[in-house]
Amino acid sequence: MSEKDRKLVEAITPRDEDFAQWYTDIVKKADLIDYSSVRGCMIIRPYGYAIWELIQKHLDKRFKETGHENVYMPLFIPESLLQKEKDHVEGFAPEVAWVTHGGDEELTERLCVRPTSETLFCEHYANIIHSYRDLPKLYNQWCSVVRWEKTTRPFLRTLEFLWQEGHTAHATEEESMDETIKMLNVYAEFCENILAIPVVKGRKTDKEKFAGAKATFTIESLMHDGKALQTGTSHNFGDGFARAFNIRYTDKNNELKYVHQTSWGMTTRLIGALIMVHGDDDGLVLPPEVAPVQVMVIPVQQHKEGVLEKAREVKSRIEKLARVGLDDSDKMPGWKFSEYEMKGVPLRLEIGPKDIQNNQCVIVRRDTREKIFVSLDNLEDSIQKILKAMQRDLLANATLERDRKTYTAYSMDEFAEICAKTPGFIKAMWCGERSCEDAIKEKTGATARCIPFEQDRVSDSCVCCGKPAEHLVIWGKAY
Amino acid sequence: MSEKDRKLVEAITPRDEDFAQWYTDIVKKADLIDYSSVRGCMIIRPYGYAIWELIQKHLDKRFKETGHENVYMPLFIPESLLQKEKDHVEGFAPEVAWVTHGGDEELTERLCVRPTSETLFCEHYANIIHSYRDLPKLYNQWCSVVRWEKTTRPFLRTLEFLWQEGHTAHATEEESMDETIKMLNVYAEFCENILAIPVVKGRKTDKEKFAGAKATFTIESLMHDGKALQTGTSHNFGDGFARAFNIRYTDKNNELKYVHQTSWGMTTRLIGALIMVHGDDDGLVLPPEVAPVQVMVIPVQQHKEGVLEKAREVKSRIEKLARVGLDDSDKMPGWKFSEYEMKGVPLRLEIGPKDIQNNQCVIVRRDTREKIFVSLDNLEDSIQKILKAMQRDLLANATLERDRKTYTAYSMDEFAEICAKTPGFIKAMWCGERSCEDAIKEKTGATARCIPFEQDRVSDSCVCCGKPAEHLVIWGKAY
Repeated sequence: MSEKDRKLVEAITPRDEDFAQWYTDIVKKADLIDYSSVRGCMIIRPYGYAIWELIQKHLDKRFKETGHENVYMPLFIPESLLQKEKDHVEGFAPEVAWVTHGGDEELTERLCVRPTSETLFCEHYANIIHSYRDLPKLYNQWCSVVRWEKTTRPFLRTLEFLWQEGHTAHATEEESMDETIKMLNVYAEFCENILAIPVVKGRKTDKEKFAGAKATFTIESLMHDGKALQTGTSHNFGDGFARAFNIRYTDKNNELKYVHQTSWGMTTRLIGALIMVHGDDDGLVLPPEVAPVQVMVIPVQQHKEGVLEKAREVKSRIEKLARVGLDDSDKMPGWKFSEYEMKGVPLRLEIGPKDIQNNQCVIVRRDTREKIFVSLDNLEDSIQKILKAMQRDLLANATLERDRKTYTAYSMDEFAEICAKTPGFIKAMWCGERSCEDAIKEKTGATARCIPFEQDRVSDSCVCCGKPAEHLVIWGKAY
Repeated sequence: MSEKDRKLVEAITPRDEDFAQWYTDIVKKADLIDYSSVRGCMIIRPYGYAIWELIQKHLDKRFKETGHENVYMPLFIPESLLQKEKDHVEGFAPEVAWVTHGGDEELTERLCVRPTSETLFCEHYANIIHSYRDLPKLYNQWCSVVRWEKTTRPFLRTLEFLWQEGHTAHATEEESMDETIKMLNVYAEFCENILAIPVVKGRKTDKEKFAGAKATFTIESLMHDGKALQTGTSHNFGDGFARAFNIRYTDKNNELKYVHQTSWGMTTRLIGALIMVHGDDDGLVLPPEVAPVQVMVIPVQQHKEGVLEKAREVKSRIEKLARVGLDDSDKMPGWKFSEYEMKGVPLRLEIGPKDIQNNQCVIVRRDTREKIFVSLDNLEDSIQKILKAMQRDLLANATLERDRKTYTAYSMDEFAEICAKTPGFIKAMWCGERSCEDAIKEKTGATARCIPFEQDRVSDSCVCCGKPAEHLVIWGKAY
């Protein structure tokens, strides 16, 4: 196929020309989503949903291995219940959808469609926790939530999104802190090993923390355009919610104590992260672990005797070890190549009369375009090795790319120049004052992504005010 | 443990004394649900949700094996979209929840919280279906839906419930009819083989069919109290929705045609069916296929040397083939026996010093209370055989019970007497007139459950009006 034909088939905006348009092109052309007549809500199509199912499978396994149980809470929260924790209601009330009528009747109390379920879990915990024997409670919920956003983008910011929300209750603050960090680490390991996306782990500043939390921890990733994406958060509530909802237990000495709580969540925005970290000008690139189809078999000259039979035989051999498809439609191989490149299928397996003669097939990696001639004798072994290599290389490359776009700023001029010219993560010292955090945002558009666990004292004075520095902060413009 | 102690631990209402209270006791004491401050909405607790996850796993596997793909549609439906199909909106509008405000702003158009998603799927299908090559579309969605019910009962009728809704589009009416029946058969096979609940397959009368459907098919089951439960429905829409939403495709002759559609659904009410078909005075009885814990190991005299070690060894051997738990808490074995009987765990495995000496353990079946002495040499084999036998016997017994409570009525007096004295399925002939269907309901409270596929001409005249009969109908009072 000529270069012209390729472009014709693909027809997406080049990534470095218009990143936002490139992103929109991919979510549509890779059949991840469709728009609906409901403002800000997306339809997640089969291919997009299959990616979400794989994300769920990997996360759910990790949650269960760490002792968590799934539950299901109501979709609605009565207004009075939402208002029980002061900071929480202030944070969420401006962006909730209100149900005011059921059938023909006006409700006596408005119900909000859950933007998050802390209040429901707290009410339930107050009912079921009585003694130290009832602790810890390690619950998780898979559901959809609604936040009335003004501007929306598929996966990154939608009025409704799918997520999981973990909610736990513990006897002591130490235990709730351990849980908060444990789940942050589960998230980080999942991002790196499954999504092949490197993360920076750290704590949010007070300005950026969750409404009602004592401390919020986050994992932050860098997208190809140099903007940051918060890929997961884990909150330690201390006993704040417990006091508001009166969640108490009798300890071993028969004393009444408040529980200590956490919550943590990951959402369908992870699919946006996959696109923006790994995608290229030909479309999506999926890490094998979350690819609905890991290998697509494409017969070449399929009308010739024996080709289709061989392709089917190859497919059925691979089926035992990987998610495999076979496209034996009457479309041209070149069209098929472009189609599965657009969809980010990790490996394409070509097999034609000449290959069969040589007892081989051709495997093409989506990320590197490397063509690998594989003997059919070692088919299973080779496929497994190449999938593993690709998974590993995607993480390695994303890490290189992230590091390449991580800068250090020692003055506000440097800071502003990086933001304007070469967006990325910016390491800069901070005095700890909200006024400097606000000033930096106003001047540069960058926010404090996190106070990273790995502190590196690049200087002794705050990049903004010059006073003694307290922390190294990772700053960046963010989605 | 004495009989008195047993009752003390369990404390549930006997089933034949007050069936409704017995049901409520089980959903609470088996830790399936908790109530919340949201009227008519339930909290599905870990044990209840684990049953739902197993139901999902078995159904989802069947959907995928029959070529269906999962998608996710928005939670909200704009009022104008809901109104596009006349019968549909008339059926659902009276029972939907309306969102009128987002944040502080009043919406220009109300959104309803989906009671079902036909309209959203239709809008999407109109967007993505163009040619015969795009057909069939075989989609399914797992989500929660809301129907503003006046009176509610956990699992059976709740304001919000979890379900799956299949939505498919086909080129011809014949294909949509095949799909409708195929999915009804998938449901029936699942109910019988997985839930161990026998079903009657049939067609709904026009009065009882789904709002907007051309024909509704149903599987009906009989609960222990003689009331019927609709356990799943499958609808053939013909081209009704396609005409309302203008879903057309060009066929091979380049002619523009309307698609033909189906939808089918099963809900968390299946958990209610499990309780009411298999439960007894000691609590829940779960078929092994959907039991979160299939075998609970209970050490006897666990303080004695070697007992706990042996119990753990037994557990780890069973882990490879079944979902197994071990209760080594310091509670009395008698308490544990009652607890896992309440929760319906299929097999209890007792092991104490004497058993260890004899190289055996004791297995007690939840349904029959049969005590089976099993040599530890054949542990794996025995467990598998007993689980299979229990699964099979539960279905056989439920079928016997259902057949025992299926009556034939040849006159309205007989019909009314059966309804009043020995509720169950009532077979009776029907002329096909709505007036007789209404009259029967008014006189007896029974509704037409279905026109069963297996027709049996028990008489030639309508049980109500005496005119020539068209169909045998299965009648019953229903949940």
